[in-house]
Amino acid sequence: MSKTMLAAVLNKPLDMEMKQVPIPVPGKDEALIKVYCIGVCGSDVHYYEHGKIGRYVVEKPIILGHELAGEVVAIGEAVKHVQVGDRVAVEPGVTCGRCEYCKAGRYNLCPDVVFMATPPVDGAWAEYVAVRADFLFKLPDSMSYEQGALLEPLSVGIHAMNRANVTPADRLLVTGLGPIGLLAIQAAKLFGVKEIYATDVVPFRQQLALEMGVTAVIDPTQHPVKERLLELTDGQGVTVVVESSGNGRAIGDALRAVKRGGRVVLVGMPAVDEIPVDVNAIIDAELDVYGLFRYANTYPAAIAALSNSELDIEKVITHKFSLNDTVQAVEMARTQKDTSIKVMIYPGL
Amino acid sequence: MSKTMLAAVLNKPLDMEMKQVPIPVPGKDEALIKVYCIGVCGSDVHYYEHGKIGRYVVEKPIILGHELAGEVVAIGEAVKHVQVGDRVAVEPGVTCGRCEYCKAGRYNLCPDVVFMATPPVDGAWAEYVAVRADFLFKLPDSMSYEQGALLEPLSVGIHAMNRANVTPADRLLVTGLGPIGLLAIQAAKLFGVKEIYATDVVPFRQQLALEMGVTAVIDPTQHPVKERLLELTDGQGVTVVVESSGNGRAIGDALRAVKRGGRVVLVGMPAVDEIPVDVNAIIDAELDVYGLFRYANTYPAAIAALSNSELDIEKVITHKFSLNDTVQAVEMARTQKDTSIKVMIYPGL
Amino acid sequence: MSKTMLAAVLNKPLDMEMKQVPIPVPGKDEALIKVYCIGVCGSDVHYYEHGKIGRYVVEKPIILGHELAGEVVAIGEAVKHVQVGDRVAVEPGVTCGRCEYCKAGRYNLCPDVVFMATPPVDGAWAEYVAVRADFLFKLPDSMSYEQGALLEPLSVGIHAMNRANVTPADRLLVTGLGPIGLLAIQAAKLFGVKEIYATDVVPFRQQLALEMGVTAVIDPTQHPVKERLLELTDGQGVTVVVESSGNGRAIGDALRAVKRGGRVVLVGMPAVDEIPVDVNAIIDAELDVYGLFRYANTYPAAIAALSNSELDIEKVITHKFSLNDTVQAVEMARTQKDTSIKVMIYPGL
Amino acid sequence: MSKTMLAAVLNKPLDMEMKQVPIPVPGKDEALIKVYCIGVCGSDVHYYEHGKIGRYVVEKPIILGHELAGEVVAIGEAVKHVQVGDRVAVEPGVTCGRCEYCKAGRYNLCPDVVFMATPPVDGAWAEYVAVRADFLFKLPDSMSYEQGALLEPLSVGIHAMNRANVTPADRLLVTGLGPIGLLAIQAAKLFGVKEIYATDVVPFRQQLALEMGVTAVIDPTQHPVKERLLELTDGQGVTVVVESSGNGRAIGDALRAVKRGGRVVLVGMPAVDEIPVDVNAIIDAELDVYGLFRYANTYPAAIAALSNSELDIEKVITHKFSLNDTVQAVEMARTQKDTSIKVMIYPGL
Repeated sequence: MSKTMLAAVLNKPLDMEMKQVPIPVPGKDEALIKVYCIGVCGSDVHYYEHGKIGRYVVEKPIILGHELAGEVVAIGEAVKHVQVGDRVAVEPGVTCGRCEYCKAGRYNLCPDVVFMATPPVDGAWAEYVAVRADFLFKLPDSMSYEQGALLEPLSVGIHAMNRANVTPADRLLVTGLGPIGLLAIQAAKLFGVKEIYATDVVPFRQQLALEMGVTAVIDPTQHPVKERLLELTDGQGVTVVVESSGNGRAIGDALRAVKRGGRVVLVGMPAVDEIPVDVNAIIDAELDVYGLFRYANTYPAAIAALSNSELDIEKVITHKFSLNDTVQAVEMARTQKDTSIKVMIYPGL
Repeated sequence: MSKTMLAAVLNKPLDMEMKQVPIPVPGKDEALIKVYCIGVCGSDVHYYEHGKIGRYVVEKPIILGHELAGEVVAIGEAVKHVQVGDRVAVEPGVTCGRCEYCKAGRYNLCPDVVFMATPPVDGAWAEYVAVRADFLFKLPDSMSYEQGALLEPLSVGIHAMNRANVTPADRLLVTGLGPIGLLAIQAAKLFGVKEIYATDVVPFRQQLALEMGVTAVIDPTQHPVKERLLELTDGQGVTVVVESSGNGRAIGDALRAVKRGGRVVLVGMPAVDEIPVDVNAIIDAELDVYGLFRYANTYPAAIAALSNSELDIEKVITHKFSLNDTVQAVEMARTQKDTSIKVMIYPGL
Repeated sequence: MSKTMLAAVLNKPLDMEMKQVPIPVPGKDEALIKVYCIGVCGSDVHYYEHGKIGRYVVEKPIILGHELAGEVVAIGEAVKHVQVGDRVAVEPGVTCGRCEYCKAGRYNLCPDVVFMATPPVDGAWAEYVAVRADFLFKLPDSMSYEQGALLEPLSVGIHAMNRANVTPADRLLVTGLGPIGLLAIQAAKLFGVKEIYATDVVPFRQQLALEMGVTAVIDPTQHPVKERLLELTDGQGVTVVVESSGNGRAIGDALRAVKRGGRVVLVGMPAVDEIPVDVNAIIDAELDVYGLFRYANTYPAAIAALSNSELDIEKVITHKFSLNDTVQAVEMARTQKDTSIKVMIYPGL
Repeated sequence: MSKTMLAAVLNKPLDMEMKQVPIPVPGKDEALIKVYCIGVCGSDVHYYEHGKIGRYVVEKPIILGHELAGEVVAIGEAVKHVQVGDRVAVEPGVTCGRCEYCKAGRYNLCPDVVFMATPPVDGAWAEYVAVRADFLFKLPDSMSYEQGALLEPLSVGIHAMNRANVTPADRLLVTGLGPIGLLAIQAAKLFGVKEIYATDVVPFRQQLALEMGVTAVIDPTQHPVKERLLELTDGQGVTVVVESSGNGRAIGDALRAVKRGGRVVLVGMPAVDEIPVDVNAIIDAELDVYGLFRYANTYPAAIAALSNSELDIEKVITHKFSLNDTVQAVEMARTQKDTSIKVMIYPGL
């Protein structure tokens, strides 16, 4: 095997180059993964464009990308539960296992997590990546690599369902129909929810949501969301909202539209520091409002559920690029939000 | 409308007669339901045969039957949420709304519940029955009366899912494949569980379970259940067991077969006072063992989930009788357990 | 017994008069209570001053007051669990017991609740009041009537502890030291919390909080709350915040000061429709934010806990008035917020 | 520092000798603890007497003991959160941090845990012990080393409270008044429970329980437990039972005595494989029965709660021995169960 590999290295905002870098050498508890496909996430695009997200700043060249699946091509001496040749999905954050959050089962809040493509940690827009083996999950034959890579954004949706204890008794609204919103809808379907509504202003996204199984889509510029939902649900309203847009109006719709005693999961991060919020609505309706930060313990459930399901989550993949064309892939995701959802990069293409 | 109706009245064990009785007059918050179909439950058969279940004793003639759906034909003056002509499922236990259990949301434990076909309260093997309107649930057009009647035993399964917080992350075992076991499997499917195993010794039931979607059936007289499950699940085991048989060996299998940290829901009531139980297994594996008594708050969820699902729960209905033939229906359920699952009675047939 | 009683009747904002009104006649499931003492709540003051709170508007003369304890002096024919002569606390909201919220154990969200002193329902600034018996709770000999009346505002604190699943593992911050804040502190102590911090700007309230057992008080105009808490807790921060002030800055402090993965209970209703909120803080720290509307199922727990405790919750009672002086009592609560906490009215004084 | 230390080495059942062994050398993420005091646990006594517990067998000489506190005397290079000189309590099971149980926050079920004094892992009846630093917890000045050592058995009680979601609304029964039972009572007091009942047949233990604050003790050979509890609680019964004895009759009492809808935590492991259990009682009363295996995430909570409390948990220490007299200490615990509760060993004595 060669000692170098092709990777997309972001030098500084809007300056990404394809270059040869050393192939990582797996540690004793790590495996080396040959990347089959890897998505472009909104956070990748944000680092590419702005060089930072909140407290995370790109201060030296970094490889982005963290939604991937691939094949195990080498393992460290202590690795037992995967073998060379296994097809695996990669959970991209490696946690310490020792802090109070890890010990309490909320490892997504681990302050010492090493998370791919979060500065200064490299991601995997590259031919290979080394990952601690306990964050690799074997894909059953019935699952494609694409599905494996999509487990990462789908995990956000599953974590939202877990946080809000969603069951088939719920009726759901998803505000925002980007990849996270569309996959939250799929997560809800996996949890047995049958009535799922969605809001977005972009026709392409509305159409895709309908194809992926929402009950109805509401354009919030055309209809007041709460009132429209009451019509659609015979006066019952929705019990849970997943807000994936980060848009101020959508956050307002989420809090107003949910039924008394309902639950609102906030996923989309607003671009501004403060949003005007109707706090009395939270109190008077005794809502639960859950913030969502990444996910924890979602991969096994996602694989179990997805591998035996009829869901076609790959519909969110609207464009495919070779690794060589990573810049074009990111530019597509950055500039054509009305016609692209998930852009996927294939090192082997 | 006539003032009397046909009903099946149990005078004493094994002595049931068809006779004319007064049609109930609905109170101001009640509705009169014309029964379309009503099931024969194991508890009905038990009262028919033995005249008592635990602390409940048949001390005067009683009408049995509590799994029903029908049409609203009259309503009391205070009834608002159903109308004459509505097709409804009937939740057969009317609770006080004022005791500590009702106020805490566990109304199935209400000491003052008035539950159909639990002595001395009459049930509905009859042409009509009056029910407090808040325990009536409108059936959408897409649901049949049969599905409506089956919501009662299905509710036990849904309550089991709720008690054990079942999600798509779980793998399930159901021990015992009578109506409750088969419908618990359907409930699990509604909750998004994809791998569901079952045990039973009767070939007819095993076959029906496979037709209704279990992953695999284990005959506990042919295979040790725990070991077989480990084979079937690639060493992972099941995370939840619903025990519906009341059989001592099945209870033992349930406690041994579930994974460490797993949950066991006990539904089937043993015929004997004490069962030898491996208490150390509960402790060493830190299991949760949940008793299950009827259900609460299941009908709306069941209707929402079922009316939009592909599940064919009516497969559990193996025999249909007219109300005139109620004695034969009950005898069928009593004596032919290897070939009958749910026997349904139709007053209009 | 006379047929009329003295009551304080609010005709319109700022126009309250003492007058004779008919003594209520208890229904068959009600008891007549001779009021021993009854508090002045912030909501009473608000109706007195503004004639409305949100969707509730005083449209005809109303008797206010809903925090009370007294003696049973007559019972309806169906009343069993209290007797004439019993000393009781009164839970002031009578619920329907039949709606989806009641059935699910969240009866505080019952749309048909009849809640004292919420227009158009009369309260109990009067000599007598009739209450459905299942909302009466016997006081043990060790509890005073004052403690009984304070169970109402204390219930808000207990409900906050229940909503946030508070245990001795938590460290708490209470923002705002009015009656609700001070009693939330007492509720936390009942739940075994040992480190409790509080914020307020009024010296009298700060002092009272220290006397009632908070670990330390922070004046948010003198210290940044989050940073001060980190100092006080050796860098650990607080895991739960109860926001009782409705103040925009305090809401901001609550969201910023709580630890990652923490819980914030919103109790105090802001006077304005929208508050600027740092939504990203909720998401990035994966907070749970719980709205709180009244309480449910708190009285038995409160009595059990309080009757065997050393807590001196009566310290919140700063002023006492006779029923004749109700106007002065309300004016005291309205105009002297810096020196009064809970004003109590005694019909028998 | 010398290179050897005194330790109590169990060669085979009933054959324990004091001998010099090498002082452990702490790894880079470990600290070396100079043991101040260390308890004798029932499991230690069981290994001493029988050489095995369930699947754990003493196959080569082993040092027992796992309930300890001491002083940090050396730290590995990567250790940050404790320093030489710190007084610490030791949580004696070091977990992998990577398995599904660890990741889900149930690290007590970690299959790869390295737990002191569980064959083949050495414990700490010795002068020194090396422990991974994240399992060390600093004791505040207000806490004694004895309290620190007792955090281990107290943790079982706290874990029981967490498993059963105990709040001040509960009334508790503890069956069995050994160290675990007595400390479960203390845990309940920390969680704000005010009414706590206990059963045991040994007068010394009954007396100690009363001194440690139970409301009343029941001798199950003198009174039927359920009926006596109903008398003591004015007909209300207890909502939670912690069974710490492993005794068949006590397990029966636990299941029968708890209120409908109640929770039973099973802690004491029976000496026999199967216990006759009234399974119908679990079902008819819809109980939750929780097995308990060790504990997780209890030390910080225990320290927070205990360091600010009036509880005198050291009352359970009935005898003190020097390390030299470890054999006598264990024999005391083994043979004098009616007069000893917790026997404590002091290497420095």
